[in-house]
Amino acid sequence: MKAYCPEEFFSRSELDKVQKTRLATTLERAARSDFYGRRFAEMGIRPEAITSAADVARLPFTTKDDLRSAYPARMLTRPVSDMVRLHASSGTTGSATVIYYTRNDIDSWADLMARCMHMVGIRAEDTFQNMSGYGLFTGGLGIHYGAERLGCLTIPAGAGNSKRQLKLLEDFQVSVIHIIPSYALHLGTVKDEMGYTPDRLNLRVALIGAEPHTAAIRKRIEEVYGIKAYNSYGLSEMNGPGVAFECLEQSGMHIWEDAYLAEIVDPETGEQLPDGEIGELVITTLCREGMPLIRYRTKDLTRFIPGDCACGRTHRRLDRIMGRADDMIILKGVNIYPMQVEQVLMSIPEVGQNYLIVLERDGYLDQMRVKVEVKEEYFVEDMRELKSLQSRISSRLRDEILITARIDLVEQNSLPKSEGKAQRVLDLRE
Amino acid sequence: MKAYCPEEFFSRSELDKVQKTRLATTLERAARSDFYGRRFAEMGIRPEAITSAADVARLPFTTKDDLRSAYPARMLTRPVSDMVRLHASSGTTGSATVIYYTRNDIDSWADLMARCMHMVGIRAEDTFQNMSGYGLFTGGLGIHYGAERLGCLTIPAGAGNSKRQLKLLEDFQVSVIHIIPSYALHLGTVKDEMGYTPDRLNLRVALIGAEPHTAAIRKRIEEVYGIKAYNSYGLSEMNGPGVAFECLEQSGMHIWEDAYLAEIVDPETGEQLPDGEIGELVITTLCREGMPLIRYRTKDLTRFIPGDCACGRTHRRLDRIMGRADDMIILKGVNIYPMQVEQVLMSIPEVGQNYLIVLERDGYLDQMRVKVEVKEEYFVEDMRELKSLQSRISSRLRDEILITARIDLVEQNSLPKSEGKAQRVLDLRE
Repeated sequence: MKAYCPEEFFSRSELDKVQKTRLATTLERAARSDFYGRRFAEMGIRPEAITSAADVARLPFTTKDDLRSAYPARMLTRPVSDMVRLHASSGTTGSATVIYYTRNDIDSWADLMARCMHMVGIRAEDTFQNMSGYGLFTGGLGIHYGAERLGCLTIPAGAGNSKRQLKLLEDFQVSVIHIIPSYALHLGTVKDEMGYTPDRLNLRVALIGAEPHTAAIRKRIEEVYGIKAYNSYGLSEMNGPGVAFECLEQSGMHIWEDAYLAEIVDPETGEQLPDGEIGELVITTLCREGMPLIRYRTKDLTRFIPGDCACGRTHRRLDRIMGRADDMIILKGVNIYPMQVEQVLMSIPEVGQNYLIVLERDGYLDQMRVKVEVKEEYFVEDMRELKSLQSRISSRLRDEILITARIDLVEQNSLPKSEGKAQRVLDLRE
Repeated sequence: MKAYCPEEFFSRSELDKVQKTRLATTLERAARSDFYGRRFAEMGIRPEAITSAADVARLPFTTKDDLRSAYPARMLTRPVSDMVRLHASSGTTGSATVIYYTRNDIDSWADLMARCMHMVGIRAEDTFQNMSGYGLFTGGLGIHYGAERLGCLTIPAGAGNSKRQLKLLEDFQVSVIHIIPSYALHLGTVKDEMGYTPDRLNLRVALIGAEPHTAAIRKRIEEVYGIKAYNSYGLSEMNGPGVAFECLEQSGMHIWEDAYLAEIVDPETGEQLPDGEIGELVITTLCREGMPLIRYRTKDLTRFIPGDCACGRTHRRLDRIMGRADDMIILKGVNIYPMQVEQVLMSIPEVGQNYLIVLERDGYLDQMRVKVEVKEEYFVEDMRELKSLQSRISSRLRDEILITARIDLVEQNSLPKSEGKAQRVLDLRE
């Protein structure tokens, strides 16, 4: 497959070299901003002393609170008049955060996004329907600019209005869509209800992102539409979409390391973790000129997938997002993420929709109990079968989280359901 | 004032020359589309026989129905894969219309829009908040691209959420907004309720368009915000916004005649009307390559304002949009538009909010009766004063529409109010 740009297939040493140069430029730029200028001065950081990408660990983190305290413009490296775009989070109180872009920033963002789309075979001949909301949300304009850069026929459909989305899909024989996973499932139902059979559509690829989702959901989207769905990762603090993207192998999202210096750290200690271990993704921008961010704590939990990708790209792969750092449980000194438990449970066919993680204290010892709903057809009277299921779950969990949990099997619909985001963890320790 | 581009201050002869050349190119391109190819063949039209811009009158009109019948792609001059954007009207039934854009079309659209904004003093140093909905509606992306072309700091706020709009206006000291007139009035109320005093904001200019509005509404917007408001004209069939725009003189919207060949025609006969007479605006695209439109009937009623503009530009000026061609009344062989009546009434201080035009037959003669609400403080018992008001209205109307109407003065709130679009005309003839 033809590369979109040379950087796409850089060797590891080329990536290291470009990271080193761009990190130096980034620090030099950042030091010109009021926020980083003061911070570097206070902490005695001399940008010129950072001589390799590994040195980044000696720099302080930047947090969402820092972004808020620098609101609106204390992180800019150049006058506001040099900026051409601004995206802001939706807060109307003091909690809003804002990212500014120069013309070059918009340009390199569009280019990164185009690279992502090109990687999964999207070309100028494709017709692309963008089902993201536009406006201040970066998912709309971000992917729009990428598609336009590639030369796709771009339909800026925006969010919602399923009947119309489907009409556009059919009338213009759309081949590629950008869609939020939960909406993809909803639209799939409307599609079937309205009789949009596969022969009426020409869909080939979906870009999915903007909300964490499981492998099972991706598979379901692929089946519902008869297409390939590729995971997209981004956040407005890092421009928006276009930060990391799956290749045709669908085994992790390559984070573009010529543009982003990525680390995985322990959310508690801030220490860098080796490839393979789950932790918080921390990113330093390497190309942004208007508003560089140094070691930004994304709060997103993931890991670097160890080993090489069959596609030949050396940009490391992020695993799917496993939740938010705030959700982390520490038990017996081990970091555990609810999403790890969920992934194990959902891989076991007998397990139903709902579960609850209960943390309790047994004397001096912390324990984890997992209450698991069993599907009706498997909730049999035969105790031997239930015992066997129980020990299968326990051992699979131990493999994943290194902790032996007590497993309570319960009947379907017996666990409390919460509106919206399910309450998955109950902490009874104290 | 510096010009944005040479075309902005072309002399009349330069404009005529460029129109002639571009009309020839446009016809040649159009003939390659399935739709125009057939039509030209059927009607024996040879594009090469059209040798001056005035010859355009020999070409057939294109209507919205033609657009529908050519749906989705029969008007394209090149393969769909050469197109990079598509905007569609909101219809989900057979009535949708669609406009395709090549990369050059997007580019020249952005350039026209930037020219409009530059004309009223908007520069790279400005911070611009776009309060238009994005997506398939051309007002959002169209003006966004123009502002970005100019290098303004662009805030893609999108429509609605007044509290947030105001917060953005204040926090980023926004100097220019794009806003729909009715929303501008609504937001002004919220602004005052929330205590956004003039010293907290930095607004200078509003671009207003997308719905017909009176001079009084523009004046009100200017007062509410303490700014200048400039009228913008466009329609998605002609790309979107950027077709015609007011200059600093605020006396009509210059239609960019290097890009659009404009005519005003009698909606009934299709005959061209001289400058100054009200009729339907008909436009031929001169720069569009993907999907040129020949003599497109906009249904919008306006006139060319006679005489030269003090700004020195020779691109002719459109008067504000006076309604839709479908609203035209024919009375005693005279074309009358409800908006003409409204403008006269609203210029008279004693007149209230509501009025009703009644068309009736008196023997063999058609007559117009106008029921006019009078403001409470003017609805006095002194019959002489009311008689005097009556004859003033009648004579002002006669000056405008050349018809002597019967005027009934009625009390405030006595005329039926309709939800949404007011019913202004009652036709009792048969």
